[in-house]
Amino acid sequence: MIRVGVVGATGYAGAELVRILAGHETAELSVLTSRRFAGAEFDKVYPCMSGVVNMVCDELNLSDLCKRTDFVFIALPHKIPMAIVPELIEKGKKVVDLSADFRFSDPTAYEAAYQPHTAKDLLKRAVYGLCEVYSEQIKRADITGNPGCYPTSILLPLIPLVKSSLLDCNTIIADSKSGVSGAGRSLSLTTHFCEVSESFKAYKVASHRHNPEINEVLTMQAQKNVKITFVPHLVPMSRGMLSTIYAKINKNVTSKDIRTCLASFYDDQPFVRICEQGIIPDTSHVRGTNFCDIGFEIDELNNRLILISAIDNLVKGAAGQAVQNMNIMVGLEQTTGLMGPGFPV
Amino acid sequence: MIRVGVVGATGYAGAELVRILAGHETAELSVLTSRRFAGAEFDKVYPCMSGVVNMVCDELNLSDLCKRTDFVFIALPHKIPMAIVPELIEKGKKVVDLSADFRFSDPTAYEAAYQPHTAKDLLKRAVYGLCEVYSEQIKRADITGNPGCYPTSILLPLIPLVKSSLLDCNTIIADSKSGVSGAGRSLSLTTHFCEVSESFKAYKVASHRHNPEINEVLTMQAQKNVKITFVPHLVPMSRGMLSTIYAKINKNVTSKDIRTCLASFYDDQPFVRICEQGIIPDTSHVRGTNFCDIGFEIDELNNRLILISAIDNLVKGAAGQAVQNMNIMVGLEQTTGLMGPGFPV
Amino acid sequence: MIRVGVVGATGYAGAELVRILAGHETAELSVLTSRRFAGAEFDKVYPCMSGVVNMVCDELNLSDLCKRTDFVFIALPHKIPMAIVPELIEKGKKVVDLSADFRFSDPTAYEAAYQPHTAKDLLKRAVYGLCEVYSEQIKRADITGNPGCYPTSILLPLIPLVKSSLLDCNTIIADSKSGVSGAGRSLSLTTHFCEVSESFKAYKVASHRHNPEINEVLTMQAQKNVKITFVPHLVPMSRGMLSTIYAKINKNVTSKDIRTCLASFYDDQPFVRICEQGIIPDTSHVRGTNFCDIGFEIDELNNRLILISAIDNLVKGAAGQAVQNMNIMVGLEQTTGLMGPGFPV
Amino acid sequence: MIRVGVVGATGYAGAELVRILAGHETAELSVLTSRRFAGAEFDKVYPCMSGVVNMVCDELNLSDLCKRTDFVFIALPHKIPMAIVPELIEKGKKVVDLSADFRFSDPTAYEAAYQPHTAKDLLKRAVYGLCEVYSEQIKRADITGNPGCYPTSILLPLIPLVKSSLLDCNTIIADSKSGVSGAGRSLSLTTHFCEVSESFKAYKVASHRHNPEINEVLTMQAQKNVKITFVPHLVPMSRGMLSTIYAKINKNVTSKDIRTCLASFYDDQPFVRICEQGIIPDTSHVRGTNFCDIGFEIDELNNRLILISAIDNLVKGAAGQAVQNMNIMVGLEQTTGLMGPGFPV
Repeated sequence: MIRVGVVGATGYAGAELVRILAGHETAELSVLTSRRFAGAEFDKVYPCMSGVVNMVCDELNLSDLCKRTDFVFIALPHKIPMAIVPELIEKGKKVVDLSADFRFSDPTAYEAAYQPHTAKDLLKRAVYGLCEVYSEQIKRADITGNPGCYPTSILLPLIPLVKSSLLDCNTIIADSKSGVSGAGRSLSLTTHFCEVSESFKAYKVASHRHNPEINEVLTMQAQKNVKITFVPHLVPMSRGMLSTIYAKINKNVTSKDIRTCLASFYDDQPFVRICEQGIIPDTSHVRGTNFCDIGFEIDELNNRLILISAIDNLVKGAAGQAVQNMNIMVGLEQTTGLMGPGFPV
Repeated sequence: MIRVGVVGATGYAGAELVRILAGHETAELSVLTSRRFAGAEFDKVYPCMSGVVNMVCDELNLSDLCKRTDFVFIALPHKIPMAIVPELIEKGKKVVDLSADFRFSDPTAYEAAYQPHTAKDLLKRAVYGLCEVYSEQIKRADITGNPGCYPTSILLPLIPLVKSSLLDCNTIIADSKSGVSGAGRSLSLTTHFCEVSESFKAYKVASHRHNPEINEVLTMQAQKNVKITFVPHLVPMSRGMLSTIYAKINKNVTSKDIRTCLASFYDDQPFVRICEQGIIPDTSHVRGTNFCDIGFEIDELNNRLILISAIDNLVKGAAGQAVQNMNIMVGLEQTTGLMGPGFPV
Repeated sequence: MIRVGVVGATGYAGAELVRILAGHETAELSVLTSRRFAGAEFDKVYPCMSGVVNMVCDELNLSDLCKRTDFVFIALPHKIPMAIVPELIEKGKKVVDLSADFRFSDPTAYEAAYQPHTAKDLLKRAVYGLCEVYSEQIKRADITGNPGCYPTSILLPLIPLVKSSLLDCNTIIADSKSGVSGAGRSLSLTTHFCEVSESFKAYKVASHRHNPEINEVLTMQAQKNVKITFVPHLVPMSRGMLSTIYAKINKNVTSKDIRTCLASFYDDQPFVRICEQGIIPDTSHVRGTNFCDIGFEIDELNNRLILISAIDNLVKGAAGQAVQNMNIMVGLEQTTGLMGPGFPV
Repeated sequence: MIRVGVVGATGYAGAELVRILAGHETAELSVLTSRRFAGAEFDKVYPCMSGVVNMVCDELNLSDLCKRTDFVFIALPHKIPMAIVPELIEKGKKVVDLSADFRFSDPTAYEAAYQPHTAKDLLKRAVYGLCEVYSEQIKRADITGNPGCYPTSILLPLIPLVKSSLLDCNTIIADSKSGVSGAGRSLSLTTHFCEVSESFKAYKVASHRHNPEINEVLTMQAQKNVKITFVPHLVPMSRGMLSTIYAKINKNVTSKDIRTCLASFYDDQPFVRICEQGIIPDTSHVRGTNFCDIGFEIDELNNRLILISAIDNLVKGAAGQAVQNMNIMVGLEQTTGLMGPGFPV
């Protein structure tokens, strides 16, 4: 058994990690930390886990954490992880960080979007944990930066196509829609029930921090400069993320070319489901699962591809992909603990 | 008082017409028809109206309708109105039709999207009831084709800009999101509570019938051929529609140019609210009202405009605009009966 | 025109007062106060009112308030109103207070449930603003304590029956369910979208502060000691309140007796709708209106009456009833400004 | 491996059975039947199962079913199962029926609530599958009538107390609230999204068919005639059921007595969680799980117990309890395949 710690276990991503790891046959939850609920039983904070998870939340203590774990997930707001991870790595732990701190390979890009980076050396060593694309590097990594939810939903459908030069990379637009759990458990008027219910809106229009993350990865994959237009929206539901992505297709590219490109790229990937023609992804099809569903149509009048992807923002967009990263990093089947079926309703 | 009939009063658009007209100081509801609920008291079908609307639903009978009304709203599925409207017009009634039957000026475009048109002569006479754009023609019209909900939400922000040549018309994409009431009161798995709740999806991707309607109007306004890419989505809420519209801006066009163009076009229009910079439309701000809120941002990296509009699909997107058309057609202030404030929650 | 002030205009009850008063033909909004948003335009706090309400929120200043208003609504948390109302009354203003401060006639009962009362003299003068029951007293009142939402939904169906001795008053149980707006606009985990959606729960079981308020009124009306069992629940919706009330009926009491009693008591009351047999109240039928719908069934096997009432907690349960009180206090038709129809969806 | 068939696999209860059984280590799904979707791949009907369940839906064919299964779940509307089960039993299959057909031991009671029973002989042999109460009989049963969702949520908290004579059985009232999935996947206006959202209502007041089912079991357990008052309500959410149950407690019964009675009765039962004092059940705590949470308060002023229970209507209220019954019937640990943790949101 791998002894696993979850740092920041009482936020939504942290609690989702606990849920998944509680059913993982090879991982054993050994430490849960929480600043706010230190000393409390975890199932008092999340009564849904009562009778299943029987642990007390600890204050974060690095040396104690190192003693009691082999593998550490960090589910804290950005800026804090870069102060913690170096010591964990030095002590020989393997780490998946769910914040943005280890997602960028270019510290300048990180610093432009976030704040000064205090562990730049580790950035070179850290691997971007988009499992279907970087599994070879992840296998050898001891620190993985788990991708953002929006980047996951946008990069998975786009990467095969930009690598194959089927698209005009100057025309990419991603219109994304997220459930409210993406905003976390912290209180704000934006997530107050009466303000969300019967409301749909855009936010951080063309100014969201996931935009440079997406641009960096696409630029590397396309081997040319890519800057997409990205607009996130808030949907009155708890879980789920759908991205509708638009791009001009290059001359003579057909629907069949698109399908072949996606299908062959994801042929062996258990968590990417390419929808049959005419089937359009729906967040309810992936809720509670680690799947990413990808469908597409071509607007023939405009020679424009419309790619649609659906994920559960807390699973493939956060905790599920984090566990998938762990599985790869420690040499397990990547599906371990992650193949539970979705809910019919 | 104008005696008003609502044909198809028990669908959602029809019932919303009844709601608005019940509070209209110059209109008097005189006939409500319903195929399915003929003979029933209207407030048995919509108990929310009990104590306010005290009428019985009739079977549709054209001669009776003509006797008892001066003005007729038709809220039936397309194809049926074109069989009814000619007689109403002949009898000197004024009509607003909420279906697609009288929206197109080009019968070929209508027939490509719907079915053979059996009242083509009237098409020439019918005016497209987008009030803020065609009010001069509406004043003189006796038959108005009330715009679709998606077209309303997409045309209002776009028309001033395409007329001013600020945009590259070949690059327009509209990503729209609608509440479930847009699908009407007919039963389908798509509108079953458990299938909609916690679900977000696209549908009729680049193949929705509102697409040619939008194209026709934009082409006329821009005075060149415009074909936009249009993808509608379904939001787990009852009312509301938000459109996020993308287009390349022409060289040297600034944010201020966009603002000036929109603001001057809608200067005297009581139902279009141009959001201040930094404020982004939200469907909850227009719920239950006839307003269309328009905001925008420019993605400077891509020289791309992002226009966002919000309407209530049942009000400005259907019954509210229909009443606004009536007001204009009969010479009332266009705001009559339509200025009730929105709900705080 | 009556110049009206709303103190605490940016909470949900306050904003709902603004919504209703904006459409009131005899009242003119003259002052809006808000501690948190003083200095801000009201429609920046509630963009749904943009274009309809064009006012700035003021800091509360009693002498200024007195100069600029004839009538004052107070929508503040309990304890604050009792420090403000005495001066307003002294200056000759009429006041409806939406908090609990002026609902009790017995200060001991108030103090047991809330805190020491600092304006006990006014308690004697204040009238309990349950309009359908105390209209004669309200007509002559200058200070009215607007009933709580739960008490309104429970007292309206019960009062006619306890006055007529049709029920065994020792057996009354009220199981009530409220939408989330009842908890106000203040942030808490309980009203966080993800915690409310797909959740149903009871709270303050047999310990809610509305329980003594209900008991005091029922005791006066029944002219004997009545103490009901009361359990409130939270429903994942924004507006609406349904109370299911159980009581043993006295021997030989029939369904017809119950109907006759309710119907005759509310015969002339425009806002109470007694449902026909077989029709059961639904919060969606009263949403956005000042109606209280009342239905009932008898469980013959147990000789037990089941009364069901539905109101909109923000209208008949708060702002609507407050305006109804104002109408009565200033001699207007009680329906003025309150007869807008409900929304079909 | 036990070869398992699900008859009626495409309704919500059937699909939930598929979800649970797909993760069951000892059961193997061998047949899925569906009248409506015969011939279709199951994951076309429920795309959430794509990549996890790879089966085709068959038309129901009893002899084929017998060949290919050892154990059969029937998730069909009542009346059909009693025509099927006798043959299955004769062929030596074990069966859990999720309809009402095998829940009653008294055929007269069944026939009064439903219709003539055509397999009365089997009624004697069938065991009522309330696992925590009848496990000894279930162990030896070959046909189990899986309890209704409302009865499960009401009987589990009540049975220990009526057996211990702590309550006055003439005063029991159950006020229950259910998510919409309880109404199944069939279309009706009652389950249309726009009619459910922002709506709360009671239905079948004191006339629901689960009432006699509850009465029969309580009467047997209390060893005296018990007839409770039962009112179900519909909550705007997909999953979850909460019952608030009221009863007079006998003289000198204390809160501690209640707690001891419940705790000792359910001491060894993994799926019943008795909430600590002050903690109140919430449907979100049991969503997606087979747990039943039970909490209580005493209204001291009225000497009345308020019991509250929460279950997931599709799991402990249907498919989960059905699998728990199978586990017991075939000699497995009753928790097999049922201990997945709940979802944090």
